[in-house]
Amino acid sequence: MAAYEHLTVEARGEHTWVTLDRPERRNALSWGMLRDLRKALTEVAGSPATGIVLAANGPVFSTGHDFADVLAADTDEVRELLELCTEVMRLVQTVPQVVVARVHALAVAAGCQLVASCDLAVAAESAGFALPGGKGGWFCHTPAVAVARSIGRKRLMEMALTGDVTDARTAADWGLVNRAVPDAELDAAVGDLLTRATRGSRASKALGKQALYAQLDRPEADAYEIACEVMADSSQSPAAREGIASFLEKRKPRWPE
Amino acid sequence: MAAYEHLTVEARGEHTWVTLDRPERRNALSWGMLRDLRKALTEVAGSPATGIVLAANGPVFSTGHDFADVLAADTDEVRELLELCTEVMRLVQTVPQVVVARVHALAVAAGCQLVASCDLAVAAESAGFALPGGKGGWFCHTPAVAVARSIGRKRLMEMALTGDVTDARTAADWGLVNRAVPDAELDAAVGDLLTRATRGSRASKALGKQALYAQLDRPEADAYEIACEVMADSSQSPAAREGIASFLEKRKPRWPE
Amino acid sequence: MAAYEHLTVEARGEHTWVTLDRPERRNALSWGMLRDLRKALTEVAGSPATGIVLAANGPVFSTGHDFADVLAADTDEVRELLELCTEVMRLVQTVPQVVVARVHALAVAAGCQLVASCDLAVAAESAGFALPGGKGGWFCHTPAVAVARSIGRKRLMEMALTGDVTDARTAADWGLVNRAVPDAELDAAVGDLLTRATRGSRASKALGKQALYAQLDRPEADAYEIACEVMADSSQSPAAREGIASFLEKRKPRWPE
Repeated sequence: MAAYEHLTVEARGEHTWVTLDRPERRNALSWGMLRDLRKALTEVAGSPATGIVLAANGPVFSTGHDFADVLAADTDEVRELLELCTEVMRLVQTVPQVVVARVHALAVAAGCQLVASCDLAVAAESAGFALPGGKGGWFCHTPAVAVARSIGRKRLMEMALTGDVTDARTAADWGLVNRAVPDAELDAAVGDLLTRATRGSRASKALGKQALYAQLDRPEADAYEIACEVMADSSQSPAAREGIASFLEKRKPRWPE
Repeated sequence: MAAYEHLTVEARGEHTWVTLDRPERRNALSWGMLRDLRKALTEVAGSPATGIVLAANGPVFSTGHDFADVLAADTDEVRELLELCTEVMRLVQTVPQVVVARVHALAVAAGCQLVASCDLAVAAESAGFALPGGKGGWFCHTPAVAVARSIGRKRLMEMALTGDVTDARTAADWGLVNRAVPDAELDAAVGDLLTRATRGSRASKALGKQALYAQLDRPEADAYEIACEVMADSSQSPAAREGIASFLEKRKPRWPE
Repeated sequence: MAAYEHLTVEARGEHTWVTLDRPERRNALSWGMLRDLRKALTEVAGSPATGIVLAANGPVFSTGHDFADVLAADTDEVRELLELCTEVMRLVQTVPQVVVARVHALAVAAGCQLVASCDLAVAAESAGFALPGGKGGWFCHTPAVAVARSIGRKRLMEMALTGDVTDARTAADWGLVNRAVPDAELDAAVGDLLTRATRGSRASKALGKQALYAQLDRPEADAYEIACEVMADSSQSPAAREGIASFLEKRKPRWPE
């Protein structure tokens, strides 16, 4: 793995942990952090890893954009920053690996967006989520795009308009994260979910994940068209063949890559 | 009613029960089962029945596609199978009757999709729901289309990527089914919901149901355009006239067909 | 403020309370009531108020359309009525103020739609919500447009097809309202939510709210395009500048208008 200034990237078994690692900057999604994330996600995407844990180091998961970047930037520079940020959020969804957010503390603004953009998310009970632009300054327009696609409208409005913190239990209840667990159980819960979400054929999961994002916000008829095509095509894949054969032969599958 | 090889179709009062009845094949949605479902739904659609219960017989609600069908099929044949399956799922939503799934046991893959496609669903507490392609073989692309339109994104991702079973209580909490009830109360709960959902004018319900599916995945402005038109048109219908008149006259309505 | 026949409109601090005030007509959304609402919302939109409470007086929040209006109306007249009603629902979402519904009692049909259309909503525990067209007469086509965009599909179907009342606790659980509170705490809860949702720059909130509705039902890629543009533009606004500067200078913000 390449070296990163803002991240720690390490293989743990068949998964790769990508850890935001600028605690003294509260893991702000600065230009540097976003470029590192883009590079790391692209690198892991091309690796044989089956899963990615997106974690953070320090007292805060991430505070979102680095206001030091924005202070001196004009509209065009901010737009570029937001486009890079959006590219990273999309990359989380287009990499072939399953991506699980491990949220141990506050995830704020674009940090909250990053969690909402992951395929799955587990939060420690002491974690929290906020769109603090709602407190009255720079409204969290782009973070709200990702959050709106995970939770109901009235809850989105409350987060976006008040800027207040939603605790982990409530976030799990609303569907912003898959579960909230006691802090001491966070790693075990992340490990368990990731193991279950990555077993089997990596190619099948990658195609599955990509097809999900392709169909999710289409009208149902279009979604079925996409899904039927992908599912018919993939019926001849080694993974599907083995899944079907092992089921019919009542034996344990031996998954291909 | 016609005779069916894979189904039992019977009138119970003003409702029709369509029961998947190949317990020895775990009610797999084989070519034969899907053709029977299409035929039965089409037949009931043209009958005076006001509601449909979609039930199943045996230890499993349905395991989804019959892998024996898929084993020897090429891509084109699988596509045809999936198109037939999609046609059946759509038919559940286009028949004029209210369709309630009665889920007494595991509903898996396209079996889970069938439940998600019904207008309403009641599950026994011992029932469960899974998209087992997530275990690593043939990913549940088409079932995920229906499930994605009932529950939040993170929960969909968990079901689709892990393949694990979601119990009935959790499914009710997520909105995949309307309620989970003790097994012994399943028929009573189905009966109660169906009675409430089918009272009044059959024509009004049919139009209502169709308009709902027409507007659900449109942008809000388009949805309002559809709904205003249908609602204005239907304001002159016998059902609307009687609803309005009985309300203003403070008497019990006498619903027309 | 202008005088209204069907409403009470009053300033309370920096917020404006718009109260449906035809209890003897159960606050039906008659032609007169809808025209008053359009006029009042338009008037408040142009005022310096930062928040709007939409409340009602009497034993019912609102029963929806006034059947006396519909009884003698032909299709064209009903369409006009529904278009006016839709215009009012949209206006709730396009006014620059944050709009909170204060629901103390039954909100029915277009009355329920009005609550679903507000940015935020707080209900007393004794309140209830229903789409009574589901009882069999004139189906609640247009109310279902708003309700469908707040809650899950199976729950929408249950409300729309049965016409039965959903109690306030369940409505909160489903996300139709932000919270259900003991009746005696309703005003305090509305006040608290509104205070938190309106603090900071009024211009920032207005833009935020409008951008949210613009992106909500778009495909994710389009939503990001809208949000990036609005967020880049607004980065140079006085509110964003003050939010960023006060954060970096670790001082309390002094919000501009």
